[in-house]
Amino acid sequence: MLARYFPILEWGRTYNRGVLTNDLMAAVIVTIMLIPQSLAYALLAGLPPVVGLYASILPLVAYAIFGTSRTLAVGPVAVVSLMTASAAGAVAAQGTAEYLEAAITLAALSGIMLAILGILRAGFLANLLSHPVISGFITASGILIATSQLKHILGVKAGGDNWPDMLGGLASTIGDTNMWTLAIGVPATLFLFWVRKGAKPALQAVGMSARGADIAAKAGPVVAVVLTILAVVSLGLADKGVKLVGAVPQGLPPFAVPSTDLSLIQQLWVPALLISIIGFVESVSVAQTLAAKRRQRISPDQELIGLGASNIASAFSGGYPVTGGFARSVVNFDAGAETPAAGAYTAVGIALASLFLTPLLFNLPVATLAATIIVAVLSLVDLKTPGQLWRYSKADFAAHIATIGITLLAGVELGVIAGVAVGLLLYLWRASRPHAAIVGRVPETEHFRNVERHKVFTVPHVLSIRIDESLTYLNARWLEEYVLEQVAERPAVRHVILMCSAVNEIDASGLESLEAINHRLGDAGIGLHLSEVKGPVTDRLGRTHFLDELNGRLFLSQNRAFAELSQDTGEPPPPNDHYLARGMI
Amino acid sequence: MLARYFPILEWGRTYNRGVLTNDLMAAVIVTIMLIPQSLAYALLAGLPPVVGLYASILPLVAYAIFGTSRTLAVGPVAVVSLMTASAAGAVAAQGTAEYLEAAITLAALSGIMLAILGILRAGFLANLLSHPVISGFITASGILIATSQLKHILGVKAGGDNWPDMLGGLASTIGDTNMWTLAIGVPATLFLFWVRKGAKPALQAVGMSARGADIAAKAGPVVAVVLTILAVVSLGLADKGVKLVGAVPQGLPPFAVPSTDLSLIQQLWVPALLISIIGFVESVSVAQTLAAKRRQRISPDQELIGLGASNIASAFSGGYPVTGGFARSVVNFDAGAETPAAGAYTAVGIALASLFLTPLLFNLPVATLAATIIVAVLSLVDLKTPGQLWRYSKADFAAHIATIGITLLAGVELGVIAGVAVGLLLYLWRASRPHAAIVGRVPETEHFRNVERHKVFTVPHVLSIRIDESLTYLNARWLEEYVLEQVAERPAVRHVILMCSAVNEIDASGLESLEAINHRLGDAGIGLHLSEVKGPVTDRLGRTHFLDELNGRLFLSQNRAFAELSQDTGEPPPPNDHYLARGMI
Repeated sequence: MLARYFPILEWGRTYNRGVLTNDLMAAVIVTIMLIPQSLAYALLAGLPPVVGLYASILPLVAYAIFGTSRTLAVGPVAVVSLMTASAAGAVAAQGTAEYLEAAITLAALSGIMLAILGILRAGFLANLLSHPVISGFITASGILIATSQLKHILGVKAGGDNWPDMLGGLASTIGDTNMWTLAIGVPATLFLFWVRKGAKPALQAVGMSARGADIAAKAGPVVAVVLTILAVVSLGLADKGVKLVGAVPQGLPPFAVPSTDLSLIQQLWVPALLISIIGFVESVSVAQTLAAKRRQRISPDQELIGLGASNIASAFSGGYPVTGGFARSVVNFDAGAETPAAGAYTAVGIALASLFLTPLLFNLPVATLAATIIVAVLSLVDLKTPGQLWRYSKADFAAHIATIGITLLAGVELGVIAGVAVGLLLYLWRASRPHAAIVGRVPETEHFRNVERHKVFTVPHVLSIRIDESLTYLNARWLEEYVLEQVAERPAVRHVILMCSAVNEIDASGLESLEAINHRLGDAGIGLHLSEVKGPVTDRLGRTHFLDELNGRLFLSQNRAFAELSQDTGEPPPPNDHYLARGMI
Repeated sequence: MLARYFPILEWGRTYNRGVLTNDLMAAVIVTIMLIPQSLAYALLAGLPPVVGLYASILPLVAYAIFGTSRTLAVGPVAVVSLMTASAAGAVAAQGTAEYLEAAITLAALSGIMLAILGILRAGFLANLLSHPVISGFITASGILIATSQLKHILGVKAGGDNWPDMLGGLASTIGDTNMWTLAIGVPATLFLFWVRKGAKPALQAVGMSARGADIAAKAGPVVAVVLTILAVVSLGLADKGVKLVGAVPQGLPPFAVPSTDLSLIQQLWVPALLISIIGFVESVSVAQTLAAKRRQRISPDQELIGLGASNIASAFSGGYPVTGGFARSVVNFDAGAETPAAGAYTAVGIALASLFLTPLLFNLPVATLAATIIVAVLSLVDLKTPGQLWRYSKADFAAHIATIGITLLAGVELGVIAGVAVGLLLYLWRASRPHAAIVGRVPETEHFRNVERHKVFTVPHVLSIRIDESLTYLNARWLEEYVLEQVAERPAVRHVILMCSAVNEIDASGLESLEAINHRLGDAGIGLHLSEVKGPVTDRLGRTHFLDELNGRLFLSQNRAFAELSQDTGEPPPPNDHYLARGMI
């Protein structure tokens, strides 16, 4: 029981020296990768760079205690940073104490929400985000983030929460471009692109092992940071208008207290909920993918608690919303991390960096961080998915494109909400028009198949309808419409058999529809019969008066129902009354 | 095509003298019933009584042109009047010009929304309201409405939008009770209750025909109106603190223009949407019930247009939101109305009343109207449903009780929203945990059944899973979890067969899950096979790479799949390897 809420109690028991070595090794590599990333994502969130470091210390320790993934690396990530910027920007101006307070409060709210959802075991809510909606949202966020960073590459001041505003801002300020900034930003971007694709083969060509080259390539951003700092110092670029990171406070994270101002909480709870859900979905996908590779399992409900604890830790140590990141988790995994302790060691690494390295960052150009972000997020943009979805499912395509379009045009919050709403509406629309088929007996078998697709035997006075869906309130109205319409088209019908082999549930609304159908068919002297009703459904119907009032019978098999009812005719059926029913739906 | 949007073109062609006579007869009876009702519901909506008459003229004509029900009678109804009072009361004080303007604007917004939903054929949205939610909402509204009218019976001033406020208001003002008002209100209420239950047998006892007695009993409210007016005049109650209807403007409805003030529209659009949906659902249920009795059909999408036109007509003639009412439609039906023309004739009757009868209403006590409302709405309160739902389905019971509770405590708008939200959450929760079963072959047949419920034959290296649900984004995550867990528990498994006979659809998220399962099973050297995939689903899968990458085969029948794969074993299966698999889920 205790181990359910504290997974550390389980893996901690078998912790030994070999595992320690592997975890430490992975922690060093992830730390090197995480330092520039933390600074860059804090910049993207509109926060002082040091906040990114703070968000990469205690949250990692909290996740190590509560998380179930052995290899997930939590911390600031691109999409959540963008959402933080959007939410905090709505209540305060960047650079003010109120803005920082809003970011801390977002982390606290998000942490509390995640933890409550975890305790309620409500991880299923993440299902509301379908794959097409998530991938559309990530693609659009990637485009938004990359665009938002162009101003730092150009050295201009431009803003905007959505794509048209961002592009407009860039267009009107492009004349102010600072050439020295551009001379830092463009090479840094190109170098980082090359590191991503070309560094590994190049390092292997000079004799490095494949794995070593792979890991060394992850240090590319650190190389860019060092080289551009050297360029700033040697060329005296600080006086030439190149924006630098400047003084970063040295020391461990402060103790911070989130705001308890009700009006602020009222403004922030919706974005905090969206950040929680997006962060959770992203993190769980990464964790599941990595766990499967090593045949481990994660518990999504406990993951909610783990991420909740991380965010609460982030809030109380001056950070902002965090979640499990894809790139860093893969690095952690590849570098051989075996337990969440690797995350705790990474936290120690980042803490050392914020104690001793921050003075070195004074001369770091903001353009370098922007280049890091651009290169990282452009891999999020997925241009193949729309075509695949178009071929596979028009409804999924519509949800994907709507999410991309609304996210680009109206910003991240409305984008997520619209994606969920479009997905849900399309789902409900389909659920309200389920599939049903008129069926007949396949000759010389006991099988019943769709009259439209198979050569089957039917008789005019018995109508067999197979319902391919549970009867719920979403389709209760449809069921009444459909059955009565089919009967109205066939004046010879004296018996209707509903074949319920695919009906897993009948809710109260479905039951009311069945009662209405029974009543109306009864008025017309038509019998209503049910066949192949599943055990649990029959049990439940038995608790009502429906079966007593049923104007017909309950048959265990469709074959039995058809055989008996087709005999029940005033005159005997004409010999060889086989025919193919066609075009009957 | 034209006849689809103007059903009048269809029934109008065969209109003849016999139909005219029947329609006129019904119109006279409905008019007599509608006059006191219109006044009373306007009072409930917090509007001048004459607005109720205005809302019963042009809307009926509009419905006669656009509506598809032959017998539905539209006009002001209790629940929508309560919702109007709640929405208009939120933006202005009762009795002010702004309050009336808000009511008119609500009718216009609601009309436009209904018409747009009709043109988009979006009637399926009404499915979001399940039977338990609607019946809970109607019950709670009945309680709220009856409570709200008690102040008029007592002759005190009390307010409140929700039940605790109303009861508190009554408790604190009950000392101010006007005894003359009480002396009118209590007998009027008792008389109307008696009319409802006892008048028909009494009239039959004095020799009236059953149908005649039934119709005459509907005139009970008119008798109460006449008697209480006479009491007021003869006893001079106007000077004794009895609140009267007072001067009612004489004449036809004015031409009114809804507000185009954007800030007002922003405040009113949510309540207008709720009024539209509640009104539509109520109206369509009545229309469907009556149509079925005469084997006629209505078109829900065209009904949206019909009700939309009615509300737009109401807005432009100084009325407020209207919909099809249950009691008056039943009276219309019983009185023999054959076409929507009866509604148009009723409109003429009400127009004549507002031209000539309004001066007679000066001395009508408000308490009489309140009594009319109380007696009408108490029949809405349904105390049997909670028990039935509890026995049948705990989830439906929860939605029902949540709707009643929130409507009583927080008012009508939050009540509807909460009902829809609770219903949807419970649905999504169940949809995210669909039913699946490990199946085996029933000996000496080709049927496969749940290993937990039947004695079936299985082999250790083949796992057959029947999935009883379409694979959609709501359960995609579950599918991955479930399949991988079942495999993890059975180390001997070398082949997994997903039996897809109940899978009607696989959306893009479901496909991604299948791909992930295929990939992960492939890593473990386990084959993934699909059996009994439906035609349209196979066609769709064929448009992707999934079938090429499938680490196994597609079998037409589960029997074939099981027969072939159970042969594929390193050593031959031991003889008589029949066993009963038990407790395997």
